[in-house]
Amino acid sequence: MTPTPAKAVRSFTITRLEGTQPAEVREDVLAAEEPLEIRVGGHSVAVVMRTPGHDRELAAGFLATEGILHRREEVLDMVYCRADGGAPEENILDVILAPGTALDLERLTRHVFTSSSCGICSKASIEAVRAQFAPIATPLVPSRAVLAALPDRLRAAQPAFDRTGGLHASALFDAAGNLRVVREDVGRHNALDKVAGHALLAGELPLAGCILLVSGRVSFEIMQKALAAGIPAVAAISAPTSAAVEFARASGQVLVGFLRGERMNVYAGTLAG
Amino acid sequence: MTPTPAKAVRSFTITRLEGTQPAEVREDVLAAEEPLEIRVGGHSVAVVMRTPGHDRELAAGFLATEGILHRREEVLDMVYCRADGGAPEENILDVILAPGTALDLERLTRHVFTSSSCGICSKASIEAVRAQFAPIATPLVPSRAVLAALPDRLRAAQPAFDRTGGLHASALFDAAGNLRVVREDVGRHNALDKVAGHALLAGELPLAGCILLVSGRVSFEIMQKALAAGIPAVAAISAPTSAAVEFARASGQVLVGFLRGERMNVYAGTLAG
Repeated sequence: MTPTPAKAVRSFTITRLEGTQPAEVREDVLAAEEPLEIRVGGHSVAVVMRTPGHDRELAAGFLATEGILHRREEVLDMVYCRADGGAPEENILDVILAPGTALDLERLTRHVFTSSSCGICSKASIEAVRAQFAPIATPLVPSRAVLAALPDRLRAAQPAFDRTGGLHASALFDAAGNLRVVREDVGRHNALDKVAGHALLAGELPLAGCILLVSGRVSFEIMQKALAAGIPAVAAISAPTSAAVEFARASGQVLVGFLRGERMNVYAGTLAG
Repeated sequence: MTPTPAKAVRSFTITRLEGTQPAEVREDVLAAEEPLEIRVGGHSVAVVMRTPGHDRELAAGFLATEGILHRREEVLDMVYCRADGGAPEENILDVILAPGTALDLERLTRHVFTSSSCGICSKASIEAVRAQFAPIATPLVPSRAVLAALPDRLRAAQPAFDRTGGLHASALFDAAGNLRVVREDVGRHNALDKVAGHALLAGELPLAGCILLVSGRVSFEIMQKALAAGIPAVAAISAPTSAAVEFARASGQVLVGFLRGERMNVYAGTLAG
């Protein structure tokens, strides 16, 4: 499917120990994690620790799932910046807006406090946690058989995880189970933002009729970002949190967890078949 | 060890599907995830999505690992707040500083932009990603045998994970492998912040001579928070990221990954035995 860029992984010399065997010095491949500073019109709006690759999708998707960007036409270009007049760096990306585009950057900047935890940031009050997006307009009733086939398709399309054991994946499928795009990142939110950004840049938002599969667990914020992208159904290999289930039920989203082939738990919504 | 508070999990009625068996409606226990707004002297400084329980430790630890709080004596009290004059809510916690304490809240507020991704927030420029804390003063050389025994001790002390499959754990051990404290949370950073906050409130920072074991993967920010708490050695059941390894090597921290009994990878520092 989409080959993982070489810079998504990095090699280190490490020492492997096992029982009474002699220590083995060897090369080990790890998931790359580097900061990306996202700017809009030259103004810094966020720094995310991310796996390099698909940075434009990440920036566009981050802005989309935070409710800032809505349409492809709002983005004129995205360029890597020079830091202090030096050579362009691949860790600073500037989103240049189309002429006449006025974004509600206030959405990001009015909440001047922040969190370093997995979860919501950009929101300085509990009220702000409440859904900022309308519920799903056209609910999806995914097929059980289609869902059961998705994990194998994700694994087949997730090349870097097998090498590092350290990357999250987000994969978007149509209702028939056809893979549309898969993205990997050390951050689970980043992987979803890359998928959402891919859709935004392709003019495909909102993602009605699609199923999102995530490799790990599902938190509140994953469901919120999925809703921002218009995704009506989310499935996960592992567990959802309480807030993810409550959010899905309130938003009209399907939420399936512990998806292991034909075994699955339905936490919100209904399935067909 | 430390019993997980009942509110750390929550029960939902779900549908379980498996192959051709009839759908089974059952109760399922999920990791609780709720917002906690952290205030300092009445001013909101962060909202984190966390698993309720040990909230005071979380608030204290968050402020400590962000470089704001340093000593027990700086905290006079921590109280749940009333929202809009109503009953006190357990989702808003105000840290009341001791008289005469002047904290560098600017550290949190000068970076007005934020990230919703797992990873660094509170830092609006890439330069700010660089270590803000001095390297480990007295490096630790942990024993291989001690490390090999830690995962079983963590599992024995992590009650909620078995029930939900959805909680991260951070456990602090002394150099002889004795468990000092273990905390669970839906957010991996929160689990570590709770451990750091526990130490701060007990007057035990910096945590020289200690080993931190985390249940999942290790990112840059986990290493940064560990360094902020003075922890010289970090071990993980799963993979580290590239930035975690680079940070550990620059900070004089031991970093061991894929710790599975007697098998382990040493990414930074050296072991004894």
